[in-house]
Amino acid sequence: MSSEKMKALHYDGPFKVSVKEIDLPKIQHPDDAIIKVTTSCICGSDLHMYEGRTAAEAGLVFGHENMGVITETGPGVTLLKKGDRIVLPFNVADGRCRNCEEGKTAFCTGVNPGFAGGAYGYVAMGPYQGGQAQYLRVPYADFNGLKLPEGTEHEADFALLADIFPTGWHGLVLSGFKPGESVAVFGAGPVGLMAAYSGVIRGAAKVFVVDQVKERLDAAAKVGCIPINFRDGDPVQQIIDQNGGMVDRAVDAVGYQAVDKSGSKEQPNVVLDQLIMVTRPTGGLGIPGLYVPSDPGAPDAQSGKGQILLSFGKLFEKGLSLGTGQCNVKAYNRYLRDLIISGRAKPSFVVSHELDLEDAPMAYDKFDKRIDGFSKVLFHPNGPLS
Amino acid sequence: MSSEKMKALHYDGPFKVSVKEIDLPKIQHPDDAIIKVTTSCICGSDLHMYEGRTAAEAGLVFGHENMGVITETGPGVTLLKKGDRIVLPFNVADGRCRNCEEGKTAFCTGVNPGFAGGAYGYVAMGPYQGGQAQYLRVPYADFNGLKLPEGTEHEADFALLADIFPTGWHGLVLSGFKPGESVAVFGAGPVGLMAAYSGVIRGAAKVFVVDQVKERLDAAAKVGCIPINFRDGDPVQQIIDQNGGMVDRAVDAVGYQAVDKSGSKEQPNVVLDQLIMVTRPTGGLGIPGLYVPSDPGAPDAQSGKGQILLSFGKLFEKGLSLGTGQCNVKAYNRYLRDLIISGRAKPSFVVSHELDLEDAPMAYDKFDKRIDGFSKVLFHPNGPLS
Amino acid sequence: MSSEKMKALHYDGPFKVSVKEIDLPKIQHPDDAIIKVTTSCICGSDLHMYEGRTAAEAGLVFGHENMGVITETGPGVTLLKKGDRIVLPFNVADGRCRNCEEGKTAFCTGVNPGFAGGAYGYVAMGPYQGGQAQYLRVPYADFNGLKLPEGTEHEADFALLADIFPTGWHGLVLSGFKPGESVAVFGAGPVGLMAAYSGVIRGAAKVFVVDQVKERLDAAAKVGCIPINFRDGDPVQQIIDQNGGMVDRAVDAVGYQAVDKSGSKEQPNVVLDQLIMVTRPTGGLGIPGLYVPSDPGAPDAQSGKGQILLSFGKLFEKGLSLGTGQCNVKAYNRYLRDLIISGRAKPSFVVSHELDLEDAPMAYDKFDKRIDGFSKVLFHPNGPLS
Amino acid sequence: MSSEKMKALHYDGPFKVSVKEIDLPKIQHPDDAIIKVTTSCICGSDLHMYEGRTAAEAGLVFGHENMGVITETGPGVTLLKKGDRIVLPFNVADGRCRNCEEGKTAFCTGVNPGFAGGAYGYVAMGPYQGGQAQYLRVPYADFNGLKLPEGTEHEADFALLADIFPTGWHGLVLSGFKPGESVAVFGAGPVGLMAAYSGVIRGAAKVFVVDQVKERLDAAAKVGCIPINFRDGDPVQQIIDQNGGMVDRAVDAVGYQAVDKSGSKEQPNVVLDQLIMVTRPTGGLGIPGLYVPSDPGAPDAQSGKGQILLSFGKLFEKGLSLGTGQCNVKAYNRYLRDLIISGRAKPSFVVSHELDLEDAPMAYDKFDKRIDGFSKVLFHPNGPLS
Repeated sequence: MSSEKMKALHYDGPFKVSVKEIDLPKIQHPDDAIIKVTTSCICGSDLHMYEGRTAAEAGLVFGHENMGVITETGPGVTLLKKGDRIVLPFNVADGRCRNCEEGKTAFCTGVNPGFAGGAYGYVAMGPYQGGQAQYLRVPYADFNGLKLPEGTEHEADFALLADIFPTGWHGLVLSGFKPGESVAVFGAGPVGLMAAYSGVIRGAAKVFVVDQVKERLDAAAKVGCIPINFRDGDPVQQIIDQNGGMVDRAVDAVGYQAVDKSGSKEQPNVVLDQLIMVTRPTGGLGIPGLYVPSDPGAPDAQSGKGQILLSFGKLFEKGLSLGTGQCNVKAYNRYLRDLIISGRAKPSFVVSHELDLEDAPMAYDKFDKRIDGFSKVLFHPNGPLS
Repeated sequence: MSSEKMKALHYDGPFKVSVKEIDLPKIQHPDDAIIKVTTSCICGSDLHMYEGRTAAEAGLVFGHENMGVITETGPGVTLLKKGDRIVLPFNVADGRCRNCEEGKTAFCTGVNPGFAGGAYGYVAMGPYQGGQAQYLRVPYADFNGLKLPEGTEHEADFALLADIFPTGWHGLVLSGFKPGESVAVFGAGPVGLMAAYSGVIRGAAKVFVVDQVKERLDAAAKVGCIPINFRDGDPVQQIIDQNGGMVDRAVDAVGYQAVDKSGSKEQPNVVLDQLIMVTRPTGGLGIPGLYVPSDPGAPDAQSGKGQILLSFGKLFEKGLSLGTGQCNVKAYNRYLRDLIISGRAKPSFVVSHELDLEDAPMAYDKFDKRIDGFSKVLFHPNGPLS
Repeated sequence: MSSEKMKALHYDGPFKVSVKEIDLPKIQHPDDAIIKVTTSCICGSDLHMYEGRTAAEAGLVFGHENMGVITETGPGVTLLKKGDRIVLPFNVADGRCRNCEEGKTAFCTGVNPGFAGGAYGYVAMGPYQGGQAQYLRVPYADFNGLKLPEGTEHEADFALLADIFPTGWHGLVLSGFKPGESVAVFGAGPVGLMAAYSGVIRGAAKVFVVDQVKERLDAAAKVGCIPINFRDGDPVQQIIDQNGGMVDRAVDAVGYQAVDKSGSKEQPNVVLDQLIMVTRPTGGLGIPGLYVPSDPGAPDAQSGKGQILLSFGKLFEKGLSLGTGQCNVKAYNRYLRDLIISGRAKPSFVVSHELDLEDAPMAYDKFDKRIDGFSKVLFHPNGPLS
Repeated sequence: MSSEKMKALHYDGPFKVSVKEIDLPKIQHPDDAIIKVTTSCICGSDLHMYEGRTAAEAGLVFGHENMGVITETGPGVTLLKKGDRIVLPFNVADGRCRNCEEGKTAFCTGVNPGFAGGAYGYVAMGPYQGGQAQYLRVPYADFNGLKLPEGTEHEADFALLADIFPTGWHGLVLSGFKPGESVAVFGAGPVGLMAAYSGVIRGAAKVFVVDQVKERLDAAAKVGCIPINFRDGDPVQQIIDQNGGMVDRAVDAVGYQAVDKSGSKEQPNVVLDQLIMVTRPTGGLGIPGLYVPSDPGAPDAQSGKGQILLSFGKLFEKGLSLGTGQCNVKAYNRYLRDLIISGRAKPSFVVSHELDLEDAPMAYDKFDKRIDGFSKVLFHPNGPLS
């Protein structure tokens, strides 16, 4: 790099982002590396910050779904080297705390003092700049970086290894899924589609996908799932009718901003209760969709404190189990990478746009408004790949 | 048996039970057996019926914790024979439906039409008379009966294999417990004590037990647990202080009739929320304590429909998992029996009284009022064991 | 049935079978059912008896891969009824012994006195006639019969649920396989192909299949596997070269009649040692291929006693785990059925012939000689399906 | 430390060790730490080197069971600090390779080029000096060091966390053990006793321990196990008789230097075959006892190449599974530490001697000859603990 400055996307305040020049990142710890970012994606969860519904402050550089090529390594790095192409889990993890040791890298206690879990470019997830920029510092690089084949092949597929492909897969794991079972995935946004696609790859007998957006449901059908439009009637009943009974597993890929049957009014417990109702006794629920302990923009006081009214009596009567939480990306990304390389997985079918970083303000605006088909946006901050 | 009649405890209406003579049970299906009941226990859940808080009708014979000696077998019985001493899971299960095949015998679909799960002597759990009687019909006897050593040794210990020992053990299993971990058990009634005792047997590093009754907490301490009286202050904080941090696993052995810190006012979500707060990120919750989809006597309308307000945002942030439901007794009772036989488990420390069936009206009254030390009552309907 | 007799295939002695009339089977226990056999397959393991390498006596009716329609049920049968179409696991199991309770139906202790495990039509596996006949008695019918959709659709696929599809799947399970991993399957006979196909269905990154028969390797390639011909060079080295390193899991679908690189000389340990060499440290081996404690036709005295010389030092150094044994068909057949119904699995690609029972002597002869493409033969003992 | 030199035990050649002064270890990588060794143990596996049966060269410092207090940390160390008391797994692991990520730290690929697994002070296990010295360099200190309570309490118990307590525990895990089961442990050396003790802690119904040395069997009995002396008759038959049938799980804590019933003649397969015979169908075998791919001192050519003759036909017939390999100490040591702190485990009952490092030549000699009660020796290289 001939210059000491780089371009990076900045959060300027609610509904305002801009690309500005800032200092290049530097090695801060012997195990750090620096990558030249080849791809960084917008995640739906970036919109929480973009819309001003969080405590994010102006100046934050967004971007927790990142990949690139190593330009520099600290003296403690032993496995990776300059020139290696790597993709990074959205979680920043130290690889040496108890939770990391046990594979729970989304709950690392060593990277974000006082909290279990860190991430790039996200409010309250530690002091890590995001990757919607030309360069990025990677802490504990050997542990966090997953090596990819040289070159530019599968770039869009590999970029999804940073978050949504493993997160969707994790949703299925949390539900206790076994091959041959039937699954209902609620929500056909990028994570929901990845959960559904994971079911297909892993041998589900049937995968139902619930949403209200035609394009999303069409995408689900294209990869072999059965679309259910909740605007056409109670999705639980639709699924039971088509499946000839309740499903074995259900996944909530919607989270706390779930809406009722009108399609627009927030009702935080609606999807969780549908999961409880659609799942057969002894089944399991996977909840990768985000629920938060505090939500200033919630529709009511209880939801504001992260309290949700659940049909717990029914859940107990059915003997259901339930798993939650952010994805430990490292638990899966190596295997999903190998499925991409061998041609058995091609998750990039969810990508709608590949853009230059300069287009980011426009892309955030359109993605936030869900117009012009913006659903999953990838930036190439150092220009298009050859 | 020289007579065609036998004595059995009858539910006569709220707070009224009596011992009456009825016809002896008969073989109704080739796989049935009849046992002469040597021991049948009162379970805390019998009190729901006794107090008139269920749809139980007069005439029901109570008793789902039963053991005895086989007096007759149907022509389909291949493994058991007359004279065998057996203990019965409280669940009636057919051993041939999908759920039974998969070890989920608490959710058998073949014994209680339209519902997943059956039991002896319990409202809405199928047409099976209870065992607080001299004789009992045992459906699918080979599958349901667990053979015991001949004689009368360990009778009180073995009787607890019907329900509370496996149910407590199940609570720990549902939490995802592994040896060397720390556990908090909420509720030191018989099931809670059994959950705590299971932790001790299985190598927990520390077991905290929360209750407000001194005798129960003393019993917990006696088997090696750390008692926490919630009347002395927030039990979550007490545990965190004594443990030097949150625990790995928590078990709810209280259920929907949980009371707030006053010790008497019902607040259905109080224990579940304490579990969420006391468990460390990545930990697990086991919920053997009963929650019901419909409770006419609930303190508010939502609880009446089995809806509970949960700190779900916090649960998600911590990435907790949660397991619920009635115990599949057969999954554990063989192993617990062997621990009793080899002297490594002696669960009968929770038994407070061993009585004649004629004493049942008095026993129900005192147990319901929790007076005179009545905590776990065993009947010997055919007289004291030699 | 108007007649009291039926046609059935009889073993007459080494290399001799014939179709004869015998009495129709009768209900012998209340839980029995009788089926009219629609399909019964020849299994490679039938050839051990056919070739006279076992203690099978003349008069035995072969056939442990059976399906059909119920014509009669005993008074203890509660779930199935006359007219139901069912497929039967090759294992006869009682559903009430400890092993059955725990899902280990291949090791039932209640159906074959003094031994753990029973089967239809097989020497030393209990007094159960085989299904290469017009009718078959099904013990413990509710437990053993898996209900299928009415009609004749998917008949050849469903027939493979009796043994080879679950057995191949089991091989993968025994290896500890997880989706995204690489697998090497040794042997591309019907079971090996099913193991490999199971890997494809369940999300293996790569499945290598080793054999010496071109047609078998072509079949493997057709379902997405990578064929390895061991006559072209050391299969271990071929796989390591193509995979860029050792595989995660390996499956032995060959068994004790493994042959050395000449392709014809028996060397019982050759495949097991190749599994050890081809699998990476921490990986796992699945051994569904048959090994026996006594083999009169073995190439040496040790093999004759079922003793195999293993590279155990290398296995230990790598920290490998290893699972063996006959398949507990019931653990999988329900899920594989559902994959067939939903169109995600079509295992009948391995079927080479569908014949009338009268053709059985010819079919055994050709299958034993592996001529004319005979690889997996299905009989329809009551005539072709409409 | 005022001096630049320290005392360390040196291997000088077969049956010869001596204490010499050498340079103090230095930080070589930013993630290194240096500890002042408080305790370092002799392990039975050190004797392989001591006896000259390995390729170990003169000058090697022995000692892979180490604990001490940190005196210096490299600039990459983030969790530990000077003054922390830590115990080290015998495995050296980098915490960043695939195997470490997945908890398989005994098979780290980053610390011993060309091999999966490293250790302190052991031939062929990488360039890591042993801890039978005053100071020790700890690579990847944050990952490898397990923090202990300050002070000197439980020193002998904690020292066993480096190897034998986790290794014994691992043996049980490899067998697939579940609480309530019966276990047979072959070998009552330190690892065997720890495996047996682990069974007691974790709720085994019965633990049989097989050996020929009275003192060892007495120690097993003292912690609640059932001793079996194989010089008194076939241990398989003794166990079956006393247990009323075969056991659920068996552990081989003997390894490749197993001896036949004479008690002195090596027969490498004798224990493995006894495991196969004593375990019930569907059970499991755990093999923590060492088997090696090459043994120059083996009794025959096959054993010399690590090839063992196994009753594989019987193993298959029973459907047994089997796990092998060195212990991933980090998978267990945190939990075992907590059991020691809470008083539920006290593994130091196996310790026979606590000595000064100067006594090492005498201790090796006596331990190798098994005289004067030498069974488990701990050195305090910086003098007795206060």
